[in-house]
Amino acid sequence: MEKTTRRIFVASALGLSVATAADALPTISKKKKMLTHHVFFWLKNPDSKEDLNKLIEGLRTLEKIETVKDIHIGVPASTEKRDVVDNSYQASELLFFDDVAGQDAYQVHPIHQKFVENYSHLWEKVVVYDSIGI
Amino acid sequence: MEKTTRRIFVASALGLSVATAADALPTISKKKKMLTHHVFFWLKNPDSKEDLNKLIEGLRTLEKIETVKDIHIGVPASTEKRDVVDNSYQASELLFFDDVAGQDAYQVHPIHQKFVENYSHLWEKVVVYDSIGI
Repeated sequence: MEKTTRRIFVASALGLSVATAADALPTISKKKKMLTHHVFFWLKNPDSKEDLNKLIEGLRTLEKIETVKDIHIGVPASTEKRDVVDNSYQASELLFFDDVAGQDAYQVHPIHQKFVENYSHLWEKVVVYDSIGI
Repeated sequence: MEKTTRRIFVASALGLSVATAADALPTISKKKKMLTHHVFFWLKNPDSKEDLNKLIEGLRTLEKIETVKDIHIGVPASTEKRDVVDNSYQASELLFFDDVAGQDAYQVHPIHQKFVENYSHLWEKVVVYDSIGI
């Protein structure tokens, strides 16, 4: 048995999750080539806490989609207000996909389509940025 | 020895990296409350591959800053062109911080200041979105 394989075997027998050399620093190394899909939402009622909570409830359903590898749902942070910082949106959704195909599959996935159907009446504008890691 | 501690001890003796229950799904669970700092760059010479490469070289220096917990450097992905998708920028930089203090420390860090000093002549516009996970 090759050394790495043997380590995984022993660790599995111990009930451990194993990080091999290839998995070292998973958050850094694995993310680098991924596709980020960042969506910013401007609500029709920007001051409505109720509408914001409703939208967030909808956004939380998206992580169940198989091709979504990581998710971050946010609101504007209280960082310094500078001309270059746009904090005029009310909610943001950042999804990580392995590749363009993963994002394509997400767009037509029933959970995503249900999300648009049930929650799109809440927003008046969205801006999307899709970036591929280099 | 408590069960988890013993497992870590045994695994450490085997030279393994150990993921305990608290670390399960680290990319998902740990990211959720973090601060995302997403910057989009429009170059003065948008068609210059050389300027783009230069900017990316500069962006790669930023991950050395201690409070930067994860980084994704990207270019527009070849996803479907839709009205809501902005793919007019040339490069993007997504940083994860633990909190607002981490982002504040980054702004005044010598490596970041050197980056602005050495590379800001390349871009004509940046847009920044700071989101705190909820």
